Amino acid sequence: MQCLWLENQQLGIREVPVPTPAAGEALVRVRLAGVCGTDLALQNGYYPYNGIPGHEFVGKVVRAPADSQWEGRRVVGDINIPCHDCPACTAGRTHHCAKRTVLGIKGRHGVFAELITLPISCLHAVPEGVSDEQAVFTEPVAAAVRVTEQVTLTPADRVLLIGAGRLGQLIAQVLVTTGCQVHALAKHPVQRNALRERHITLLLPEDLPHTTATTPFDVVVEATGSPAGFAEARAAVRPGGTLVLNSTYPGTAPVDLSALVVDEITIVGSRCGPMDQALALLADGKVDPLPMIEATYPLNNALLAFEHARRPAAFKVLIRPPG
Amino acid sequence: MQCLWLENQQLGIREVPVPTPAAGEALVRVRLAGVCGTDLALQNGYYPYNGIPGHEFVGKVVRAPADSQWEGRRVVGDINIPCHDCPACTAGRTHHCAKRTVLGIKGRHGVFAELITLPISCLHAVPEGVSDEQAVFTEPVAAAVRVTEQVTLTPADRVLLIGAGRLGQLIAQVLVTTGCQVHALAKHPVQRNALRERHITLLLPEDLPHTTATTPFDVVVEATGSPAGFAEARAAVRPGGTLVLNSTYPGTAPVDLSALVVDEITIVGSRCGPMDQALALLADGKVDPLPMIEATYPLNNALLAFEHARRPAAFKVLIRPPG
Repeated sequence: MQCLWLENQQLGIREVPVPTPAAGEALVRVRLAGVCGTDLALQNGYYPYNGIPGHEFVGKVVRAPADSQWEGRRVVGDINIPCHDCPACTAGRTHHCAKRTVLGIKGRHGVFAELITLPISCLHAVPEGVSDEQAVFTEPVAAAVRVTEQVTLTPADRVLLIGAGRLGQLIAQVLVTTGCQVHALAKHPVQRNALRERHITLLLPEDLPHTTATTPFDVVVEATGSPAGFAEARAAVRPGGTLVLNSTYPGTAPVDLSALVVDEITIVGSRCGPMDQALALLADGKVDPLPMIEATYPLNNALLAFEHARRPAAFKVLIRPPG
Repeated sequence: MQCLWLENQQLGIREVPVPTPAAGEALVRVRLAGVCGTDLALQNGYYPYNGIPGHEFVGKVVRAPADSQWEGRRVVGDINIPCHDCPACTAGRTHHCAKRTVLGIKGRHGVFAELITLPISCLHAVPEGVSDEQAVFTEPVAAAVRVTEQVTLTPADRVLLIGAGRLGQLIAQVLVTTGCQVHALAKHPVQRNALRERHITLLLPEDLPHTTATTPFDVVVEATGSPAGFAEARAAVRPGGTLVLNSTYPGTAPVDLSALVVDEITIVGSRCGPMDQALALLADGKVDPLPMIEATYPLNNALLAFEHARRPAAFKVLIRPPG
């Protein structure tokens, strides 16, 4: 089968054998896959991953020997594959299993391929009313939902999102569903346009110093992944407030720990979320990712897809395997 | 009156006029005051404070023109003096009032003096059964209680305290009151001895790498104020766990923000707490600070008291004004 292969930070199209599902696993034909910032970061060497990248997908089950009723179903998949046996797993924190593999990120080939294998326990059936183009966003929408699991938001909360790119757009939409007062710092016109008519107060970078000096925010969600974004976010959160980090950052950042203590700031790292809730938001139309689709490339043009995804302020680039 | 004076990081004994209480304030005679790590940090130049330092005290009200029933009462005092008018104050977050003065730390003379002024609204009457030697610990006990306000602890939680000095000892005792499983990393024999027979599992620095590799902690409380302590604490907290910072740190520390995201770590800055609850713990004997008193110096020997407090693993050094 055809796939995209990452090795020593070099991407290439390859032919590889069709994978064989292990016990409890399904063989899934990928219908559509999404390029995420993490994929670009892997190519940059953020994590030493060699193999097939990609983790955002919607597919159709070809074979599920352990439970044949899954065969033929349209599915998305949880990207963390836990051992189900360690202390973290038995405590219910499977996303933090120390032995986990992560689809297209760690120890398991990803979705920029014709076919993948994944444990049946990781699969989630896609409701009929949710199209492939919507369902391919399930994983990043779940990551956005995760923020609202970790931080209780009410209509009294003034919330600022910094970074309105691929993930930030989805976070903004999910934040609105909580009824909180959503503000977004969006640097690029295309990012601002996508947020209009969504009950979001748009801020420009030049507005931020005045706004944060007069009325800093109860909660700030940082989704840029840049040290500058972290510094802006830290400056924008009020004493006693919460700063949510939602991105991967290169290297380390200098943090004034004393100021965190004096201002009693809470910093919350946030990663993967509940796929079921994400599918429900997509099915209800409460989150609409379709305007974010910027281009769809066939798998054999995946290198162009990555180049496209690297453009400043690029939204979602999709990859479609043959078949 | 006699006082200790800090100016340009130099300490000296001075004679100054007795302060005059402003509207709503009481004049309080200091009976006993405690030297805190923050006082030493101010002397180190952590914050550009000039004036009378000191914020841990027990005293007796001499005059309270606005409410004479306070006169003659033994009191401790909240060290944050808020404006009661700004958005933080009206939202009930008076400890985070941006215009606040802080006793002996910011914009208000402190307690290493014969007499101080403080708003009556900051005073808390000391119950009869609580001695001066206990009451002088109210402020740091309140800071320890603050941790348990910010992080819900249950008997299922494995908690590690790093740093068993002046503040750490009190945090350990308060943690035990929650029923959680308290572990403490105490480097000095005197610190370990003080924690024995308190339902606390003691760890040595050489034990930590193995313990954190096999069974990292649900919650880690960092009370050393050193970058090395922060790094140890970060390594010891499990994915999805909480790291509480309870100290002031010099400069900035390099923090791997991506790892916070991937491991979904929550960092909680923690500062000042509820004086009432601290007094109740002291009155019930649930927190016993008396074994921590290492020496008491008369105010005119306050410079020696500071030198004593700087000794490695020094516990609490008290200062007693004349009268």
